[in-house]
Amino acid sequence: MTEFSVLPPEELQAIKTGLLKRYTAICDRELSLDITRGKPSPEQLDLSAGLLETVDARDYTSSAGTDCRNYGGLDGLPEVRQLFAEYMGVRPEEIIIGGNSSLNLMYDTFLRAMVHGLGASHTPWCREPQLKFICPSPGYDRHFAICEQLGIEMIPVDMTDDGPDMDAVESLAAADEAIKGIWCVPLYSNPTGAIYSDDTVDRLARMTTRAADFRIFWDNAYAVHYLGERPGRVRSILEACKAAGCPERPFLFGSTSKITFPGAGLAMIAGSATNMEWVRSHLFFQTIGPDKLNQLRHVRFLKNMDGILAHMEKHAAVIRPRFQVVEDVLNTELAGKGIAAWTRPEGGYFVSFDAPDGCARTVVKMAADAGVKLTPAGATYPLRNDPCDSNIRIAPTFASIEDVRTAVEVLAICTQIAAIDQLGAV
Amino acid sequence: MTEFSVLPPEELQAIKTGLLKRYTAICDRELSLDITRGKPSPEQLDLSAGLLETVDARDYTSSAGTDCRNYGGLDGLPEVRQLFAEYMGVRPEEIIIGGNSSLNLMYDTFLRAMVHGLGASHTPWCREPQLKFICPSPGYDRHFAICEQLGIEMIPVDMTDDGPDMDAVESLAAADEAIKGIWCVPLYSNPTGAIYSDDTVDRLARMTTRAADFRIFWDNAYAVHYLGERPGRVRSILEACKAAGCPERPFLFGSTSKITFPGAGLAMIAGSATNMEWVRSHLFFQTIGPDKLNQLRHVRFLKNMDGILAHMEKHAAVIRPRFQVVEDVLNTELAGKGIAAWTRPEGGYFVSFDAPDGCARTVVKMAADAGVKLTPAGATYPLRNDPCDSNIRIAPTFASIEDVRTAVEVLAICTQIAAIDQLGAV
Repeated sequence: MTEFSVLPPEELQAIKTGLLKRYTAICDRELSLDITRGKPSPEQLDLSAGLLETVDARDYTSSAGTDCRNYGGLDGLPEVRQLFAEYMGVRPEEIIIGGNSSLNLMYDTFLRAMVHGLGASHTPWCREPQLKFICPSPGYDRHFAICEQLGIEMIPVDMTDDGPDMDAVESLAAADEAIKGIWCVPLYSNPTGAIYSDDTVDRLARMTTRAADFRIFWDNAYAVHYLGERPGRVRSILEACKAAGCPERPFLFGSTSKITFPGAGLAMIAGSATNMEWVRSHLFFQTIGPDKLNQLRHVRFLKNMDGILAHMEKHAAVIRPRFQVVEDVLNTELAGKGIAAWTRPEGGYFVSFDAPDGCARTVVKMAADAGVKLTPAGATYPLRNDPCDSNIRIAPTFASIEDVRTAVEVLAICTQIAAIDQLGAV
Repeated sequence: MTEFSVLPPEELQAIKTGLLKRYTAICDRELSLDITRGKPSPEQLDLSAGLLETVDARDYTSSAGTDCRNYGGLDGLPEVRQLFAEYMGVRPEEIIIGGNSSLNLMYDTFLRAMVHGLGASHTPWCREPQLKFICPSPGYDRHFAICEQLGIEMIPVDMTDDGPDMDAVESLAAADEAIKGIWCVPLYSNPTGAIYSDDTVDRLARMTTRAADFRIFWDNAYAVHYLGERPGRVRSILEACKAAGCPERPFLFGSTSKITFPGAGLAMIAGSATNMEWVRSHLFFQTIGPDKLNQLRHVRFLKNMDGILAHMEKHAAVIRPRFQVVEDVLNTELAGKGIAAWTRPEGGYFVSFDAPDGCARTVVKMAADAGVKLTPAGATYPLRNDPCDSNIRIAPTFASIEDVRTAVEVLAICTQIAAIDQLGAV
């Protein structure tokens, strides 16, 4: 395949004519496809069908004999904390299980920091003159949305294959006391699929921060969500921070949203025993306790780490072909043309696609006109502002394989048309 | 029965000797009884056993065909909103269903007010120089705890049989712009069992408030939790506020914690469409959505308002004898002695007991020494400060009938001993 940039204008024009023909034919099909959100498919949800039958009218007590139907147990059933401590790589006293949404736990942590400050010795964030957060980009739109809602200025830093650009992160954190933390998705990062290297983890733990209450929000959303042979490994941020003498620096988050059920899974927050005591002291005012029946369902269904890994292998079998079709179509349509780049993730829920600079918005718009909904251009950047206007997130899990194929084909066609237009061939 | 205060000292002494004998005999039994919390008994929880079998591996879609296992639906399944709108006496667009804890919804509402203010036109509470809340007392300790944690000064006003002393409430609200709201449990109030009169509701709706963002936190925790023939009725605070031209004044809260399962029920917030839009705009940043499977279980199990009422009749049948035994023991032990007063609630979860002024702490301590755990003296007042040191909350639902009988007997014995000691007979 020859790069578009070296082709003569008349050849580009001929290619474009062919592409427009395909585009028009697709428009005529009046498609309505959506590959915007990282949502498991019904086929994946069926894998957890058994979860709904582990608790019934006669069987609702925990291993310690707790009646899970009644009040109590602020931080989760002991056996559930045990299981997910192993899952999160922490000790049972370093985790709290609650609610169905890790986003909720992150948001609540921000709100506690705003109103109360992080522990007794720190000023409530709402009394600080300025608040900033380091936002590795492209990243997760819901993380950025929390900062935006709370008026926290977002400082983007580039993502590399090893995690955020640590030179940039270190110099920012060391220089500005308004910088209160950093968002991290350490494994199969949303959307690039990056896996934080050991060096990245160690530097995050060891770096000097001007703000004494600097926090790492470690959203380990895809801890076991692998597509390859086995889950990737990321060094323990909590252990690294303990070793570096700042055990309170990281808050870890996880959930079973993409293990069991997105709407009815379990969410968890982890960190140092001191941090968990702080969370517990706030939870006491907020709730009498979590839904222990749903916790019981989960521990009975998943059983142990081996059970979780075996279950995730089934997920991988369902979604692997969808990722493969993304790679196949992009490769067939775009390889060697010098106009696009994309990731080949080993896990997680996304492929990160880079159209030519300045083209993402156009491509997303053209695809929408052809009935294919893509994540809005810019969504992966703070304030929806992709400085290059090039990144597009592909979420291939929910749609059928055929729909993914068609949607990505449309993306590829639109990208080529936009690229040719930009080369000024027309 | 003769009032203690008119008995000669030697007769009181003889009575006390008898009481001490009984007290010692009870101590010798080494009891471990607990009537501190408003917790349903296992027998009550069994009434909802069927709830756990309404959703299974093959049956998880809402009436509109939504797969309840997956993400989505920020404000609850439509059929669930429909049912609980009727339950709360509001329209479906005036309610949001989320989580398992109404306390959590109350707490989050406070935190949103602290950080963002109540709607665009109001100052975040955290920027106000002073914050105060009207706290009808005795009241619910968890309400007071939220104010305490957030540094909101609590202004107690007396509870009457018709609700809070409205003369006091009106003059406070009209005079002080730091007063941002009032806590209310309108039906079978915790702990007195009071039912707000129509006049109380109307005055709360119509009263002038110095604070433009004054809010009524209307915790309708016991909306259908009756012990008599049928549920009591309280005039709609939302309709009253609409009629008075301040539809944004009330936030209504409810839950199925004491209808189905305390740990695994549904919680709800209701209010004007404008207020619900405000809540939704915050929820968007906080979560992707609630546990719809548990919502589906509830609507399938409870079906409709008739279903809820029929179900509550079964609850009443279980707890009525416990309340009856409280009344019987207190009546047998204390009637006519002029040393105690107590409520005979028509619903709810508590009996409010008044020992002689200055004696509650002593009574609770003596009962604890005899192995009977009562709600700490003062717990029903802001900052745990009962100015008369007389109120004790009795929660008879969880313990067995025999245990309730024994516990209340201990309470009555201790009250008499404390009263005699106070009369100076010894």
